[in-house]
Amino acid sequence: MHFFSDNATPVCPQVMAAIAAADRADHGYDGDAWSARLDAAFSDLFATPVRAMWVATGTAANSIGLACLCPPYGGIICHEESHIVVDECGAPAFYTHGATLMPLPGQGAKLTPDAIGDRLKTIRPDVHQIPAHAISVTQATEYGLVYTPEEVAAIGRVARDHGLGLHMDGARFANAVAHLGCHPADLTWRAGVDILTFGCVKNGGMVGEALVFFGDQADARAAEAGRWRKRGGHLLSKGRYLAAQILAMLENDLWLKNACAANAAAYALAQSAAARLLHPVQANELFLRLSVSEAAALRGQGFDFYDWGEGAARLVTNWSQDAATIQPLANALRALP
Amino acid sequence: MHFFSDNATPVCPQVMAAIAAADRADHGYDGDAWSARLDAAFSDLFATPVRAMWVATGTAANSIGLACLCPPYGGIICHEESHIVVDECGAPAFYTHGATLMPLPGQGAKLTPDAIGDRLKTIRPDVHQIPAHAISVTQATEYGLVYTPEEVAAIGRVARDHGLGLHMDGARFANAVAHLGCHPADLTWRAGVDILTFGCVKNGGMVGEALVFFGDQADARAAEAGRWRKRGGHLLSKGRYLAAQILAMLENDLWLKNACAANAAAYALAQSAAARLLHPVQANELFLRLSVSEAAALRGQGFDFYDWGEGAARLVTNWSQDAATIQPLANALRALP
Amino acid sequence: MHFFSDNATPVCPQVMAAIAAADRADHGYDGDAWSARLDAAFSDLFATPVRAMWVATGTAANSIGLACLCPPYGGIICHEESHIVVDECGAPAFYTHGATLMPLPGQGAKLTPDAIGDRLKTIRPDVHQIPAHAISVTQATEYGLVYTPEEVAAIGRVARDHGLGLHMDGARFANAVAHLGCHPADLTWRAGVDILTFGCVKNGGMVGEALVFFGDQADARAAEAGRWRKRGGHLLSKGRYLAAQILAMLENDLWLKNACAANAAAYALAQSAAARLLHPVQANELFLRLSVSEAAALRGQGFDFYDWGEGAARLVTNWSQDAATIQPLANALRALP
Amino acid sequence: MHFFSDNATPVCPQVMAAIAAADRADHGYDGDAWSARLDAAFSDLFATPVRAMWVATGTAANSIGLACLCPPYGGIICHEESHIVVDECGAPAFYTHGATLMPLPGQGAKLTPDAIGDRLKTIRPDVHQIPAHAISVTQATEYGLVYTPEEVAAIGRVARDHGLGLHMDGARFANAVAHLGCHPADLTWRAGVDILTFGCVKNGGMVGEALVFFGDQADARAAEAGRWRKRGGHLLSKGRYLAAQILAMLENDLWLKNACAANAAAYALAQSAAARLLHPVQANELFLRLSVSEAAALRGQGFDFYDWGEGAARLVTNWSQDAATIQPLANALRALP
Repeated sequence: MHFFSDNATPVCPQVMAAIAAADRADHGYDGDAWSARLDAAFSDLFATPVRAMWVATGTAANSIGLACLCPPYGGIICHEESHIVVDECGAPAFYTHGATLMPLPGQGAKLTPDAIGDRLKTIRPDVHQIPAHAISVTQATEYGLVYTPEEVAAIGRVARDHGLGLHMDGARFANAVAHLGCHPADLTWRAGVDILTFGCVKNGGMVGEALVFFGDQADARAAEAGRWRKRGGHLLSKGRYLAAQILAMLENDLWLKNACAANAAAYALAQSAAARLLHPVQANELFLRLSVSEAAALRGQGFDFYDWGEGAARLVTNWSQDAATIQPLANALRALP
Repeated sequence: MHFFSDNATPVCPQVMAAIAAADRADHGYDGDAWSARLDAAFSDLFATPVRAMWVATGTAANSIGLACLCPPYGGIICHEESHIVVDECGAPAFYTHGATLMPLPGQGAKLTPDAIGDRLKTIRPDVHQIPAHAISVTQATEYGLVYTPEEVAAIGRVARDHGLGLHMDGARFANAVAHLGCHPADLTWRAGVDILTFGCVKNGGMVGEALVFFGDQADARAAEAGRWRKRGGHLLSKGRYLAAQILAMLENDLWLKNACAANAAAYALAQSAAARLLHPVQANELFLRLSVSEAAALRGQGFDFYDWGEGAARLVTNWSQDAATIQPLANALRALP
Repeated sequence: MHFFSDNATPVCPQVMAAIAAADRADHGYDGDAWSARLDAAFSDLFATPVRAMWVATGTAANSIGLACLCPPYGGIICHEESHIVVDECGAPAFYTHGATLMPLPGQGAKLTPDAIGDRLKTIRPDVHQIPAHAISVTQATEYGLVYTPEEVAAIGRVARDHGLGLHMDGARFANAVAHLGCHPADLTWRAGVDILTFGCVKNGGMVGEALVFFGDQADARAAEAGRWRKRGGHLLSKGRYLAAQILAMLENDLWLKNACAANAAAYALAQSAAARLLHPVQANELFLRLSVSEAAALRGQGFDFYDWGEGAARLVTNWSQDAATIQPLANALRALP
Repeated sequence: MHFFSDNATPVCPQVMAAIAAADRADHGYDGDAWSARLDAAFSDLFATPVRAMWVATGTAANSIGLACLCPPYGGIICHEESHIVVDECGAPAFYTHGATLMPLPGQGAKLTPDAIGDRLKTIRPDVHQIPAHAISVTQATEYGLVYTPEEVAAIGRVARDHGLGLHMDGARFANAVAHLGCHPADLTWRAGVDILTFGCVKNGGMVGEALVFFGDQADARAAEAGRWRKRGGHLLSKGRYLAAQILAMLENDLWLKNACAANAAAYALAQSAAARLLHPVQANELFLRLSVSEAAALRGQGFDFYDWGEGAARLVTNWSQDAATIQPLANALRALP
């Protein structure tokens, strides 16, 4: 049983069915019937008019979103362990034509209003220095922690007070909502988020993430994002297959159900290894203290996962699991000496 | 029956089956078993060791390929009606960080060695002018014409003599090979092509085109392309679904069979409207003289296609058709007064 | 006597005196007393409030100006023989992060409203094509012709009607004003010009051209240009020496007097070789039919100039000459068999 | 008496004389007699064949140099307080098309081999992460400290061992050499430096810094740098005035004499305020503990300088001063209660 990443999982059946259902002729690019429904579907989900578009990957979604918020000479405040800093090979700099990531430390890969405020104070308002233009937060974070609506809103106020855009990398947004039990609006536009990367692939999709634009500037930003999408080579010619997947995720709250299952699996594992946890488990990732021999023992029993530095490991649960299916690993963890 | 574009067609059954067969857990990105087989599969196809990788779109493939051949201060000689010039919103400039397309006229959207040579002569070898670094040809061209192996080789010689890279946009490479009946090697590396965009989506795929690197520098260029792919947001996290599609296209020469079917449909239509042809039909596109009323008459009978300026229309056939299935349109064309 | 280029000339005495006068301590970058006077000086010159800044070169001025008018995915309509197309190694693409030059033919390197309008009609308003965002004209043109105020205004109307910015490369703006005898405002903001590259170096300066912003958006564009200037490495640390040169050019209409002298020299040469002229002489450049042996004969008498293709030559007069000083060349031209 | 910055000083007489001497007609851009002498002059200075070119500013020199060492997807290890990080508004990202600065902490703005090595270890060698391609050190540092030849060589070994390029921002290279009394070669190519920004403007120049290329790849890098120089708008049309300034700096070791004078002034001030020093004084910058009232007292006596955070000040001496001329300030510092 693998716990490498939610990337490694198959596609969930409803998404596969949606792909099959979309398998008929329609107009190319985003001129099809499925793509046309995205704005409405996400407006429903977020209980406010939004604009939404598909792109191929989360890296593209993050980068295109940030390019709508930050000019080449601007800076983007983010966590030093965020995906955009450590795992995208500089894609945000590529799409923004050279904007500067401004990484901050922070417990559990979370930004705080204070840390952001302190960083902003160090920037002289002259032409020699790079002015911050945006903040990017990851929900859930790279350590599987969630920002509460209040925490996002506090960052949103810093953003608004300093005229910064607020982007949320929601590769695991579903897991955060599932954990918090809040309305998705409370974590986004009501808290000041301008642009959201709404992750689908880790949550059961095959190809395609949604980029969602909130607020007064949604139309203008979506228009600009449309240009970056095309220039980036992300305007897929058979876009209906992506739109169909995303719509399937939204239908009957599949996105939330899948995330609940993944989270439940993680919670159950956490209970079985409470003393080993390096971070609280609030989504579908566990970071465990695990010696080399313990890791080897688990792998010997058929459980696959990544080491996380020395003496630690990362395990990621996914939509295809739940508290029941991960029982073998839970047992194995409990059985470690 | 639609003849809008080969983009508009569904996915062919074998590709859909391959997607289903790939629907099991494996490593993310391109660490999976399917992606690992691409180099070998394309090396077999081209009868020489090559490097191959998937990207999401032809625009990305073209742009990334060109970025491997041309620095930001360089120029790319191409046809003024080529896709990279008129239909990619500047994607090549994006991926090359500002390289200059150098468009040339030419009958049927074809470049000639003479036209290329004449253009090269106009460039002063000083730092004020943009030196050409690459040539890009489209096979089949935007008007559905094919370059013969000899014609490609003649351009390849110009490229070699001037130290230029040679890129081939093969969105409809399959259709060209199907028409010519030659070995794919004869149209590519044997003729001096360095990098090929091997199109799959128009030929029955869902998502994913292959970028193929030939020759001594294949490894170095593929390594660099891997960086652009990541930075461009094209390293899909479930890449196995793309690799599986591409492998399915290669298996049992599906790519060629699909292209033969599409071409056969086009040839049959061409016979039924020989007097209307604006260009010879050598692949799966027809450009027809068609008055407004004639176009309306055909549309009234359920045939959809795009106008091509005034008094003309473009019809594109596809893998799901053949000489038999397009009979209704052939008849309708013959029946026009 | 050299007629290579107005680049080749020494610095005029008043500019050299201004440099000497600025040779005392002051704040760095553009925090000095001279730089602070630029806005007012150019506002006086143009009889309207403008913003003005120095940059090191005309290439930088053109590129930064265009970057204020055109996004990376946009296009800039210009003449196919303009400096930005053929002599800046792609600098506009560099500063705009990949915008596309859209070169047009036109007699004497002049754009016409009709040619611009026709080009605009070819652009489909979809995301696949590059939308024009700006027009750039050169005054005087690369063939030494001038646009009249009416001609600029006609292009300005096209720009306004299509929502395009209008940039003027005024490397030889002074020569154009000197020829026309009009107010500089008539050739710029009154005719719809948004941003002007006001050339000084060819007209007697050493280092430093002015970038002038007109209209409602002048402040916003100047702020953005300040960023490109810094990022481009053009915020010189002893900027006062550039500002002082530019102010010296404006004082007592030195810029106009220098241009009048250069033009007078050109007119006198034109009279002496009227039958050889390839273009009317309206500024300080002459394009002459001149056989290889004739060119050699002139060079043998100590006159230096560049060939302009086969059987032609370009001669450029400058501020240090006038009708009297070029008499030897005028005589030599008359004396050619 | 101002101690704001060495930027604020006038031009030294020998440089002004060289400008006057260059004030005659010659070929434009870098086709003139002065520019042609740069390679030889710097080869003499560094006792090895080098390539050298002028650019307008240190920011441009740094950025162009780094663009020769680092691709867009690469990283540049540097100090977190270095000029390229905090004072160039992202110019290195502009010229490298998005390379990532990798800032490290370090006492006195100095990098150490250990800190660099530790940082390199954190980079996974996969396509998701940004590989370091270059190291940039500042000589003297932003806190006026110098790297000894041994210290540079130790960093040079790290660079060589990891296949990284080594750039030196030598805005105050002259002050470092003056302090160390070593041969300039010992601080550069003998220690593994590939590219040097050789500062002139702070040391008595008006406009123009030199970019110097060492080693086997000097020619290739200089050719590439020539493209960035042109594209960046730094190929000044009357480049001879820059070349003449730089040559004047080299003649009779003016660069070293000027730096010795500035350093002597700084050392004398340091002696008068030894208890206040925040950093050892090894070049021409002093960082002093100074209360608000003390600072006010000094300013009241006509001494100008910048605050450096709370309770501290930065004073920069320059070529026009020496131990004698700064006596008034030395006395005033001693007289502080």
